[in-house]
Amino acid sequence: MNGRERFLAACRNQPVDATPVWLMRQAGRYLPEYRELRKKHPILELATTPDLAVEVALQPLRRFDLDASILFADIVLPLRAMGSDVDLVDSIGPVVAQPIRTEAHVDALSPVRSRNDLSFVMEAVRNLKGELRGERALIGFSGAPFTLASYLIEGKPSREFIEAKRFMHEQPDAWHRLMAKLADVVTDYLQEQVRAGADAVQLFDSWAGHLSPADYASHVAPYTQRILRDLRSTGVPRIHFATPTSGLLPQLAKLDCEVQGLDWRIDLDAARKQVPTPVQGNLDPAILASSATATAAATHGILAANAGRAGHIFNLGHGVLPETPPENVALLVKTVHEASRTVAKVAA
Amino acid sequence: MNGRERFLAACRNQPVDATPVWLMRQAGRYLPEYRELRKKHPILELATTPDLAVEVALQPLRRFDLDASILFADIVLPLRAMGSDVDLVDSIGPVVAQPIRTEAHVDALSPVRSRNDLSFVMEAVRNLKGELRGERALIGFSGAPFTLASYLIEGKPSREFIEAKRFMHEQPDAWHRLMAKLADVVTDYLQEQVRAGADAVQLFDSWAGHLSPADYASHVAPYTQRILRDLRSTGVPRIHFATPTSGLLPQLAKLDCEVQGLDWRIDLDAARKQVPTPVQGNLDPAILASSATATAAATHGILAANAGRAGHIFNLGHGVLPETPPENVALLVKTVHEASRTVAKVAA
Repeated sequence: MNGRERFLAACRNQPVDATPVWLMRQAGRYLPEYRELRKKHPILELATTPDLAVEVALQPLRRFDLDASILFADIVLPLRAMGSDVDLVDSIGPVVAQPIRTEAHVDALSPVRSRNDLSFVMEAVRNLKGELRGERALIGFSGAPFTLASYLIEGKPSREFIEAKRFMHEQPDAWHRLMAKLADVVTDYLQEQVRAGADAVQLFDSWAGHLSPADYASHVAPYTQRILRDLRSTGVPRIHFATPTSGLLPQLAKLDCEVQGLDWRIDLDAARKQVPTPVQGNLDPAILASSATATAAATHGILAANAGRAGHIFNLGHGVLPETPPENVALLVKTVHEASRTVAKVAA
Repeated sequence: MNGRERFLAACRNQPVDATPVWLMRQAGRYLPEYRELRKKHPILELATTPDLAVEVALQPLRRFDLDASILFADIVLPLRAMGSDVDLVDSIGPVVAQPIRTEAHVDALSPVRSRNDLSFVMEAVRNLKGELRGERALIGFSGAPFTLASYLIEGKPSREFIEAKRFMHEQPDAWHRLMAKLADVVTDYLQEQVRAGADAVQLFDSWAGHLSPADYASHVAPYTQRILRDLRSTGVPRIHFATPTSGLLPQLAKLDCEVQGLDWRIDLDAARKQVPTPVQGNLDPAILASSATATAAATHGILAANAGRAGHIFNLGHGVLPETPPENVALLVKTVHEASRTVAKVAA
C-alpha cells in the first residue's frame, strides 16, 4: 500500500499494512527550510500564493515518510473572503481590527463563493494534488464555525473566550445568524476543496473543548453537524478535530463523520470505547518536542492501546510545536510504520 | 445550618439544607477593594503578612454569602521556603531566576518545617479561623507536586510544559527525587494548616490535566496519592482539584480523598457516574465573567444535573477571572442557595 491507500483505508476502517501517520502542522516553524521561506514572505503571502503554499506543504514530505499531506492555508482565509479585516500578527496570531459585537456586524459579513473568492486555495489544492502523484493522501481543511466565530468576536487569540461566550448568551439571535453564515461558507469552501482534488477534509474546531458540554450542545454542535452532513455527498472521509474534548466525547460520537480526532489527554482505548468511528491521534506534542526517548515510548504505548484495531490514523493530539526537533519527527514516523507493521504481521 | 456546617456536611456526603458554595480565587483582582490593597502592597507582601492575608480572605465574605473561606496565600510560598528564588512578576506570574534542570538543583532544595519556615501562613490561618467564628468553613490549600515542579522546571508559566516533560522523561531519577521532596513539603504544610485550624484542605494540581493519562499515572499520581493518604489522619476533608481532567477521571476516582473538583468541561451527572466521592464544581468561570443571564441559566443547569444528590459543593470549574463583575458573583451565590433550598424542600 502507498501512503494514500493506507490513509484512506484507515479512514474507512479497512485493514492496512501499517498504521498511517501524518501530523497536524507538519509544515511549519519547526522546519529550518520553512523558517527560511518565512524570512522572505509573511504567512499570508505563503498561504495565498499557490506556488509558495505548495512548496510549504511539500517540505515535510521531502524529509519524512508521511502518509498524507495537508493543504497549507490559514484558517483566517475564509474570514477575509467574508470581508473581515483579520490579519496575522507575528507572535500574536489572528487579530481583527473591528471585532464582531452586534447583529449589524454579522449582517455586514459577505457570503463567499470559494471557487471565485478563494480560487488561489483551489489552485494550491490542484497543484499539490499533481505533485503528490497519488502516492500520498491530500487533506483539505477549514476551521469550524465556533473557532472562526471566536476569532471574529474576541478580535485576538483568547484563552477564556469571555466575549464569544457573552455574545453567544446575550445576543443569541445574532450568534445563531453568525454560526449559520459561517457554516454556509465552510461547507462551500470544503466542497470546493474536494472538487479541486482533496482526498479527505478535516474540520478543525480547535477551541470547542473550552465550552461546557451544555454550551457546545446548544450553540455549536448543530452547525458542525450541518456542515458534516452537507459534505457527506462529496464521498471523501470527513475528519473532525477539537481539543480538549474528553468531556465532549459523548456528543462528538454522534457527529456524522468518518474519523474523530483525539487530543493526548485521554487514553486511546478509553476513547475508542466511546467513539464508534475510526480515530486520529493521540501523541502529546510536548513529548515530541521534549524527548526522543519519550516519543518512542509514548508511540509504542499508543499503538499498544489501539491493539491492532483497524481505523487508527496516527497523529499528534494537537499541532507540531515550533520547538520540535525535526529528528524527533523522523523517529516518530519510522516508529509508527515499523512497530505497526510488526503488529499487522502478527495479526495476519 | 450555617455555612461551615453546610460545607462540611456536603464534603461528608451528608444531607444539607442548601447546596454550599464557595469560589476558587474568590479573593482577588475582580474585587475593587482588593485592587485598592494591591496598589499599596505587592502580592507576596499580602500573602506573607498575616493581617493583610486575613483582610484579603475576608473581603469576599463581606459581600457574598459564601459558605467557606479559603486561606489567602500563594502556591509559591512553600517553594520559597525550600530556597527557590521564585518571584511573582506582575502580568506574568511565578518566575524562577534559576530553573531546575539537574539533579544537583533538586538536591539543593531545602527540606521545610512549615511550623517554623511558614509560620506567617499558620498565623494567618489561626487569625482567619477566629474571624470566621465557626460560621463559615476555613479551607487550607497547597499546590500539588506536579504543578509546583512545573513552575520550578519551566521557570515561568507555561502552556505546553515542554521542559517539565523533558525533565520527567530524560532525568527520571531526578524527577522522582524532586516529586518525593515536594510531596514531603506539601504534606507537612497542609498538616500544619490543619493544626492551625483549617476545616478542610484543597490540593491544587492546576495543570495536571495537560499530561497524558500515561504520564500522569507513572510520574504524578503516586505522589498526589501519598500526600492524600498521609493527610487522612488529620480527619479533615481532603479536596483534590485539577484541570482539564475529563480524560483523567478514571484515575482521579481512585485518589484517597473526600471531594473531587470538576472543571466545566464535563457534564456534572456524567462525572458523578465516574467518581465515587462528593464533587465540587462546575460552572464555567468565563460564563460568570460574561453574562448574568447565562450565569443564572448555567447554575440552574448544574443543580439540575446534580438532581438533588448529596455531596455537591458548588464552585467554578477554575478560579474567578479578573474580568468578573462582582454583581454576577452575588447573583450566583444567591441562585445556588435559593434554587437548591427549593430542591431540598421538594425532596423532603
